[in-house]
Amino acid sequence: MITMISSKDNEKVKYTKSLLKTKNRNKENKFIIEGYRILTLAIECNVDLDYVFINEDFEKKKEHLDFINILNNKNIKIYKTTNKIFGELIDTENTQGILAVVGFKNRDIDNNIKNSHKFVLILDRIQDPGNMGTIIRTADAAGVDAIINLKGCVDIYNPKVIRSTMGSIFDMNIIHATQEDTLRVLKNNNFEIVSSFLNTENYYNEVNYKDKVALVIGNEANGVNDELIKESDTLVKIPIYGNAESLNAAISSAILMYEIKKSLV
Amino acid sequence: MITMISSKDNEKVKYTKSLLKTKNRNKENKFIIEGYRILTLAIECNVDLDYVFINEDFEKKKEHLDFINILNNKNIKIYKTTNKIFGELIDTENTQGILAVVGFKNRDIDNNIKNSHKFVLILDRIQDPGNMGTIIRTADAAGVDAIINLKGCVDIYNPKVIRSTMGSIFDMNIIHATQEDTLRVLKNNNFEIVSSFLNTENYYNEVNYKDKVALVIGNEANGVNDELIKESDTLVKIPIYGNAESLNAAISSAILMYEIKKSLV
Repeated sequence: MITMISSKDNEKVKYTKSLLKTKNRNKENKFIIEGYRILTLAIECNVDLDYVFINEDFEKKKEHLDFINILNNKNIKIYKTTNKIFGELIDTENTQGILAVVGFKNRDIDNNIKNSHKFVLILDRIQDPGNMGTIIRTADAAGVDAIINLKGCVDIYNPKVIRSTMGSIFDMNIIHATQEDTLRVLKNNNFEIVSSFLNTENYYNEVNYKDKVALVIGNEANGVNDELIKESDTLVKIPIYGNAESLNAAISSAILMYEIKKSLV
Repeated sequence: MITMISSKDNEKVKYTKSLLKTKNRNKENKFIIEGYRILTLAIECNVDLDYVFINEDFEKKKEHLDFINILNNKNIKIYKTTNKIFGELIDTENTQGILAVVGFKNRDIDNNIKNSHKFVLILDRIQDPGNMGTIIRTADAAGVDAIINLKGCVDIYNPKVIRSTMGSIFDMNIIHATQEDTLRVLKNNNFEIVSSFLNTENYYNEVNYKDKVALVIGNEANGVNDELIKESDTLVKIPIYGNAESLNAAISSAILMYEIKKSLV
């Protein structure tokens, strides 16, 4: 089941390499996952892998050979190539020598926010891939029903985002929508829109949250945009007790998510 | 006040470059801070800068020239060098072209845990520089009085750690101590030792914390070590509501710090 590829001009190599760019990922609705750990998570989550690439070194470890058997049992096509060509298909320097190409569906807001949903996270121009991945992972842990990414967020299929999600990229209900559609759907579904905002007197732990909450987390440098602040039902801030000027966006979203979750359980 | 250096064999260049290594930083008790933002934070915090290096491009921006004036008014020695030599003094690819060398003091546990302290954070083998920096920044925000780094933590003067602290490296009372000394001093000072631990029934938000808490955060992969778990007064866990296997160490420390702080305010 393993096919050798030794030319960098091979079509499969060229196609895979093209998926390192956001533009091509969006055209093809495909993305790359890289590394042994994330591939095992993908298999555990029953993610359909289109195909797998390994390099010359991958089969040197016993646990990797067992994993090849699992892929073979699932009839997943495996291509083996040189370390050099493999290196061109990934964005990291240290590699375990395995990647897979996976398809994704674009989820629209009207069909993916359900009446039963109680907890939604709205992300407004989150820029840092590590923050985005960590926020997705934390939202999964905190029992968030859907994440809505507004325009201007970093691509969630960026390899650094995927690594930071630690597998939650495969589970989470992540929607891309305009701010207008987001507000329409959430208001129709009776969500309380809660934004983190520095210029408010409301501390996040002194608010009585409603039974359906949409929490908005803003851009790392500029916070939540003005229009979304105006449309919010509740503004909250996290106190700073020491000398730090602010909290990291992933950290503040985690503190808020876990506090709000207490009132929804 | 600006001295030109054009040779990579210059003693100041060689000395500064040597500080990229942990071993040399510890021998000299000096570290490098890099980037315009962190240097402005250092000046705001009244940190003593030993000297500054800039590259050929730094003076092209108006705000940078103003900053040079501030440095001149403080009689801080500035060395200007080529972009190529400057590039060898830093660990990043994108640079704003400014760095400073700063001294640090080693803080011992007996003199730096005070009887008035109420909230201490103990870090057990935190490995990832981004996590370490974010934990220091969050601890500063959450009003932690001291951070105790046990053996096996990443060097806090690693450039990636410093960047992630966003200036809190200059403010925080960070102590390096053995586990034995840490337990002795904290127990003598009547701290409740609280460890995050997966195999407990205690949820972090259902515990009545005492009025002096030392929170222990463990290694990213392996958690808190066995002996420290045995010596802990209280074990707590954060619930996972979704499919995520775990939380990132910086995220879980933030959720716990802000929850514990509520009972200490």
